[in-house]
Amino acid sequence: MTAPSARITAVDTFDVRFPTSRELDGSDAMNPDPDYSAAYLVLRTDAGDGLEGHGFSFTIGRGNDVQVAAIAALRPHLVGRSVDELCADPGSLSRDLVGDSQLRWLGPEKGVMHMAIGAVVNAVWDLAAKRAGQPLWRLLAHADPEWLVSQVDFRYIADALTPEEALALLRAGRAGLAEREAALLERGYPGYTTSPGWLGYSDEKLTRLAKQAVADGFTQIKLKVGADLDDDVRRLRTARAAVGDGVRIAIDANQRWNVDEAIAWTNALAAFEPYWVEEPTSPDDVLGHATIREAIAPVKVATGEHVQNRIVFKQLLQAGALDVLQIDAARVGGVNENLAILLLAAKFGVPVCPHAGGVGLCELVQHLSMFDFLALSGTTENRVIEYVDHLHEHFDAPVVVREGHYRAPLTPGFSATMHPSSIAEYRYPDGAFWVADLAGQSS
Amino acid sequence: MTAPSARITAVDTFDVRFPTSRELDGSDAMNPDPDYSAAYLVLRTDAGDGLEGHGFSFTIGRGNDVQVAAIAALRPHLVGRSVDELCADPGSLSRDLVGDSQLRWLGPEKGVMHMAIGAVVNAVWDLAAKRAGQPLWRLLAHADPEWLVSQVDFRYIADALTPEEALALLRAGRAGLAEREAALLERGYPGYTTSPGWLGYSDEKLTRLAKQAVADGFTQIKLKVGADLDDDVRRLRTARAAVGDGVRIAIDANQRWNVDEAIAWTNALAAFEPYWVEEPTSPDDVLGHATIREAIAPVKVATGEHVQNRIVFKQLLQAGALDVLQIDAARVGGVNENLAILLLAAKFGVPVCPHAGGVGLCELVQHLSMFDFLALSGTTENRVIEYVDHLHEHFDAPVVVREGHYRAPLTPGFSATMHPSSIAEYRYPDGAFWVADLAGQSS
Repeated sequence: MTAPSARITAVDTFDVRFPTSRELDGSDAMNPDPDYSAAYLVLRTDAGDGLEGHGFSFTIGRGNDVQVAAIAALRPHLVGRSVDELCADPGSLSRDLVGDSQLRWLGPEKGVMHMAIGAVVNAVWDLAAKRAGQPLWRLLAHADPEWLVSQVDFRYIADALTPEEALALLRAGRAGLAEREAALLERGYPGYTTSPGWLGYSDEKLTRLAKQAVADGFTQIKLKVGADLDDDVRRLRTARAAVGDGVRIAIDANQRWNVDEAIAWTNALAAFEPYWVEEPTSPDDVLGHATIREAIAPVKVATGEHVQNRIVFKQLLQAGALDVLQIDAARVGGVNENLAILLLAAKFGVPVCPHAGGVGLCELVQHLSMFDFLALSGTTENRVIEYVDHLHEHFDAPVVVREGHYRAPLTPGFSATMHPSSIAEYRYPDGAFWVADLAGQSS
Repeated sequence: MTAPSARITAVDTFDVRFPTSRELDGSDAMNPDPDYSAAYLVLRTDAGDGLEGHGFSFTIGRGNDVQVAAIAALRPHLVGRSVDELCADPGSLSRDLVGDSQLRWLGPEKGVMHMAIGAVVNAVWDLAAKRAGQPLWRLLAHADPEWLVSQVDFRYIADALTPEEALALLRAGRAGLAEREAALLERGYPGYTTSPGWLGYSDEKLTRLAKQAVADGFTQIKLKVGADLDDDVRRLRTARAAVGDGVRIAIDANQRWNVDEAIAWTNALAAFEPYWVEEPTSPDDVLGHATIREAIAPVKVATGEHVQNRIVFKQLLQAGALDVLQIDAARVGGVNENLAILLLAAKFGVPVCPHAGGVGLCELVQHLSMFDFLALSGTTENRVIEYVDHLHEHFDAPVVVREGHYRAPLTPGFSATMHPSSIAEYRYPDGAFWVADLAGQSS
């Protein structure tokens, strides 16, 4: 179908912001008023097949324009590139982008520039999966192990995971693939919900949503904590009363504490048996997480949504600093780096429970967990994908969660495609919503 | 002089790029063709005293526009703010910027957004020192210890350094201040030079520049390494022959190696007695640096120019991962965060030898080392500031280095002010140099 000479012709970027702060959806101890936003991009080609690659960085409002500028700065690496070659080997693009010596100075491999690389790399995987007519999880799960290993950058992690070890893990993961795929298509992948637990919600709303979560089939919920200890005691008691003893309650401090505070605060909540404490301190503090983990067991330590790259994940695993590894689909350098992180987790035997929510993060990350189940971990035991019921309506192929499980998406691609009408409505500051909103503010 | 109601009226930004890649100045194993650049800003006020605050992020070319966009995103935090309040307490601005919950998502405290915060915070210190009629080093060295402690954000480092410990270090540092200040004004602060050692230079040029460095009074030079081991053996032998046994030769790999490679490569060069190996691997790899340090002693481990914030420095110190801590004036969140890092180094007894070079980094960082000497470390033993003789002519108060020592700058401010004519010439892409250059390329 595609002309073999097809090229990338354009990288179109969009600053898309949703006014979520108006409802206190997404409020936590560090993020009181997020406006969930996407620095969004579309790769266009001259293949004539109607297919585009979509990707985005997730931000929470201000600075989304900076993120868009960073994506735009990558345009020269993409325009003119062969579509066939790009989709056959997204790793080559990933290496080119991470290795651009001038852009590298702005990280390296962290923050705005690295998130931009992740958005672009993910858009290529979206295009590759669409061209293959497969949802990304399936493309990855059935890919040749040697090829998957070729997609991973082992620089700075080879002391913890060699290419040979990665290959052995992926080869071993092939056993039972067909049975697991049948089970995945039948039951889906377990999720947990954060919807009851936002910090801005009343106790009544917390109780109602917690009971609803159990009724909906979730076996784990999550509460935001860390603003006020007395409030947290009351809210955790309220949540425990609402869900009973059989449901796991995770707590999430969103980096609010110093090391000592994290230990004291978590232990003060221990009576309510929190399952894990998430982001107890700075995501940069490997040694701090190790200290906290030792002091709060049996409560588990979970982190990852703000971990900048595979090098920090490597150290968290080497230091025995976490019980639960939380990948994020849009923070690191895209699918290729998340393959490295999933392989590291498999090597160290630590379960992966992705961060999601925001806008589009559930849509993306489900593919990575499903690949993990089919091709690496081989199990969904103690593994859950975060679920938040916001903003899915803006996507072409929104996640489907039933009885507490993510249904395996069947639409080809990475589920990253946003409705053009949503982009037109919420483009900042010139979309219809913001034009009206800003006019209202000034009147 | 200043009206008490004076406000910040504008934050003007400039994308300034120098075509240094044409001469292979600044070439190393990771950065073959840097165009030293500044994402530059000027704070303007309505005080009527003619004073401005200047600051910048240093980049190496592409992406400087992204860095400028990040600085511009901070404008709403500055415009309208009281000049008196800002200059009396730059820490309050630093906390506001680091704590902006929406912008924080783009880091936190790392990469493009954090470097932008550093540029803005440094510009405020420049303005504060100009208003005080003092070079910044002197303002800091004579500041009240309690006030200095109030300028430090202890979040995420309090497990290693408490405010009380910081205060005790600063109080103890007052003893002998007057004598040290006299000595500083008399002799200056020792420097070392990287000018002979760029990777792109011939052996003849290396020999000539190394001999020149010794003749100029430097007791330490630095060589870039890491591209090819045979070349490095030859270059290090050449350098050792040129300078003799009494001069220290540091080597700098600019993050080129994995952990195992760093150990093997450094040990292969041990016969030439390198003094330190700099950036042997990823700046994110605390545990990797600790492993390397143990395996290459007595060669010292130095790092810091790409260390993103105080939290990673804290861990490098906690893990015993470095012998030499290299602050950078324009990578972290500005003077306030560098105060935290200097205090951490003092607490752990590790000498600080700043990274400099690029454009304007020597001008800035000399102030921090001189403060360190006067108010914290109390010594210049085993402490040297990097010196590279590039691009100083673009500054209003360029560094003066004589007999291997940085002379203490006496011009009020942070030495950050670039000539308006240099900005006009090298603004990208609309400055006179680039207009002519781009026209030449297209003709």
